[in-house]
Amino acid sequence: MPRRRPLIVVSNRGPVSYDRDEHGVRVERRGGGGLVTALRGLREQHDVTWIASASSDEDRVVAEEGGTDVVLVAHDPRAYDAYYNVIANPLLWFVQHSLWGLAEAPVIDRSTHAAWHDGYAAVNAAFAAAVVAQLDNRPDAIVFFHDYHLYLAPRLVRNAHPQALLAQFVHIPWPADLSALPHALRDPILDGLLANDVVGFHTERWARNFSATCGDVGETNVTHHAISVDPQEFDELAASDAVHEQEALIERAEKLIVRVDRTDPSKNIVRGFRAFELFLAEHPEWHKRVTMLALLDPSRQAVPEYVAYLEQIERAVTDVNARFGADGWQPVDLQVADNFPQSVAAYKQYDVLLVNAVYDGLNLVAKEGPLVNTRDGVLVLSENAGAHEELEPWALTVNPFDIAGQADALHEALTMPADERRRRAAGLREQVRTHDIAAWTEAQLADFDAALARRGSRNVGA
Amino acid sequence: MPRRRPLIVVSNRGPVSYDRDEHGVRVERRGGGGLVTALRGLREQHDVTWIASASSDEDRVVAEEGGTDVVLVAHDPRAYDAYYNVIANPLLWFVQHSLWGLAEAPVIDRSTHAAWHDGYAAVNAAFAAAVVAQLDNRPDAIVFFHDYHLYLAPRLVRNAHPQALLAQFVHIPWPADLSALPHALRDPILDGLLANDVVGFHTERWARNFSATCGDVGETNVTHHAISVDPQEFDELAASDAVHEQEALIERAEKLIVRVDRTDPSKNIVRGFRAFELFLAEHPEWHKRVTMLALLDPSRQAVPEYVAYLEQIERAVTDVNARFGADGWQPVDLQVADNFPQSVAAYKQYDVLLVNAVYDGLNLVAKEGPLVNTRDGVLVLSENAGAHEELEPWALTVNPFDIAGQADALHEALTMPADERRRRAAGLREQVRTHDIAAWTEAQLADFDAALARRGSRNVGA
Repeated sequence: MPRRRPLIVVSNRGPVSYDRDEHGVRVERRGGGGLVTALRGLREQHDVTWIASASSDEDRVVAEEGGTDVVLVAHDPRAYDAYYNVIANPLLWFVQHSLWGLAEAPVIDRSTHAAWHDGYAAVNAAFAAAVVAQLDNRPDAIVFFHDYHLYLAPRLVRNAHPQALLAQFVHIPWPADLSALPHALRDPILDGLLANDVVGFHTERWARNFSATCGDVGETNVTHHAISVDPQEFDELAASDAVHEQEALIERAEKLIVRVDRTDPSKNIVRGFRAFELFLAEHPEWHKRVTMLALLDPSRQAVPEYVAYLEQIERAVTDVNARFGADGWQPVDLQVADNFPQSVAAYKQYDVLLVNAVYDGLNLVAKEGPLVNTRDGVLVLSENAGAHEELEPWALTVNPFDIAGQADALHEALTMPADERRRRAAGLREQVRTHDIAAWTEAQLADFDAALARRGSRNVGA
Repeated sequence: MPRRRPLIVVSNRGPVSYDRDEHGVRVERRGGGGLVTALRGLREQHDVTWIASASSDEDRVVAEEGGTDVVLVAHDPRAYDAYYNVIANPLLWFVQHSLWGLAEAPVIDRSTHAAWHDGYAAVNAAFAAAVVAQLDNRPDAIVFFHDYHLYLAPRLVRNAHPQALLAQFVHIPWPADLSALPHALRDPILDGLLANDVVGFHTERWARNFSATCGDVGETNVTHHAISVDPQEFDELAASDAVHEQEALIERAEKLIVRVDRTDPSKNIVRGFRAFELFLAEHPEWHKRVTMLALLDPSRQAVPEYVAYLEQIERAVTDVNARFGADGWQPVDLQVADNFPQSVAAYKQYDVLLVNAVYDGLNLVAKEGPLVNTRDGVLVLSENAGAHEELEPWALTVNPFDIAGQADALHEALTMPADERRRRAAGLREQVRTHDIAAWTEAQLADFDAALARRGSRNVGA
């Protein structure tokens, strides 16, 4: 096997961020987010330069000093705000998750077009310049762009380095219809993505939608590989003191239903509570015997839709608890916080894990939970979560809009015979252990090799 | 050419409805709606039996008497309400026009499932029984189902008459993703449609979406023919006294922008006013020189979403007029009424016709207006209206979500050189005159003949 080429990973959020402690000493914080976790393994085995946005004041200082393996790009703050809080979130996020009622939103006005030009395009140009500077020194490096923040950068890099090998992975759904974006945005997005040699998605469904949107993908190879987790990391976490402490704090009735999500409308949290409410209304025999623990990480509170959604969540919980709570039993235990050890503790303890997303690129909760669960818990999984393509054989499938169907699934999960629960839980565990993040990374690298080989054969033919 | 087979047309709304006048004498009212108009021509040339819902008390009396060429089916009133006001409108309508923000709607609950079983399925079964009774007497008749009210009937008819030739035309968009409907609804809908020999849509886009949703359409032929209007009917209307009277009442400034729509969220009326407001804000030179006349037929006020949308429309008009109205000039002239002569009068008089639908199966306004317009008016047309596939060469295309783009299009239309306006208007007129409703009907009949021929050749091969 030939020595692999160096890799330039480009993503909005980086693997580290810098700060100063109370003594003014620089400290390094490990970045969060599924992507950063997923790609951390790559850095351990590979010659990787990572380009990301500077996100703190100290990041900007580091950016000025010039990076080594991590290059931080310091953007104009107003451009970054337009890029992140107007275009990427909510516009692209909401469109790609089909969250907007098109009768009312989006409303693309002059400010949207300005945010596109002066924000999204400007920040993409800054990213592209940083990539081009790297390629000028190492023209054989492979560039690996990530996600919906960076749709325009590949075309700009391609223009400067026609021979570079460029790839992009889109971590969110590709919708069946992109017409909510006017051509002024849609066309450059498609053009940018098709400047890559490889465009990857988590599922065959998103890849097929993307190809259909493009009509003709030209020489771009559109692939799909579902991302995964690091089982060893979760084994260690599950055995840690921090998680044991959290486990002791979980108040559970006879049975425990768990959900773990960001407070994002795409996660379908309100309908989940409505389904649980319907289940309790139809099954009084389960009153005081089951609790739904909802661990919700507050998300994007700079975006009005997210503020409104968190309020809806709180109202829905109040409704259920007011209607059915009695004798100290609260049907729903809502915890709005960012507490990963608590999430892992809940993963270990659930009898039912509810993942009912409206749409989700993949949904790592559906993989993390079964990996460490100790109770042969049942996974109730939305057919619109990317993970469903892989985990369907062992999950109870629900339609995210059908709360009656979700209530039925909760009942089926809670009353499932022990041997069937065991069989399904074992299947999920085995699938995730044997299809881990290392396998995903290898699949990406194999796609790059194949693209290089195709290019070689084209050059031979030319 | 062989004598054509008799035709059984099946649609929710019939070509006539009955009432009693003040003397208790039965009177016949001509049914409304584009479909009824479109199919009227067919009845004049063809052996047609029409099966429709009884919609008035007198219809129920006629239904009991038994029909001749019009068979009225008297449904159980509660079943009909669930069928029409819960499932067909709004659920199927909203899903097929992509109107709902999936984060919040639809919420499919027990009452939805009940409305599906006891309403939609029950009414479809009643329709199917009426069709089967006809086919029992005339097994060679061709059955032509219409629209989203009747997705389940074809399978029931097919079960009773395996050899019957069945066709269905869907007059509304087929969305790229139907996952907003749970499988309990989606699967029987697709199964019902695929029980037809032919399924037709207005556009290649809807037909392609339908085929993609099905994955495998089996032996069903999926076709597309854009419906049209009867030019002679509009010529006569345009010359009528009723229209001349209405023309005299139109108050116009130097230029007149017109829109004619039902007050349906799919029609995108509010964004149209926002675009006009933006245009006026950016072009003060047009103040007092242009009026937008909005002729809106109040629609489906039994459905809460439609009540709320009409309120939004009224607020948007108040906003524009309060902001820019001056010296007796009201920028927007809003008329909420069902007044077809007034619509034709406005068609004759517009300088710009705005059709900016979120989604629309076809949109007949975009054909009716140019047919009778006398001022070389410009058509501003949504890329998501089915008519856009046919009329694009002569229209100004807008994205329905982009109010900045719509404001630009209004300006371009108002300032377009006379010769270009003339060229485009002539092109639209010619296209509609040469692709009229008779051509559409002939295309349907040709599809039926082709299906019969295919079946013949299959039988020969068997």
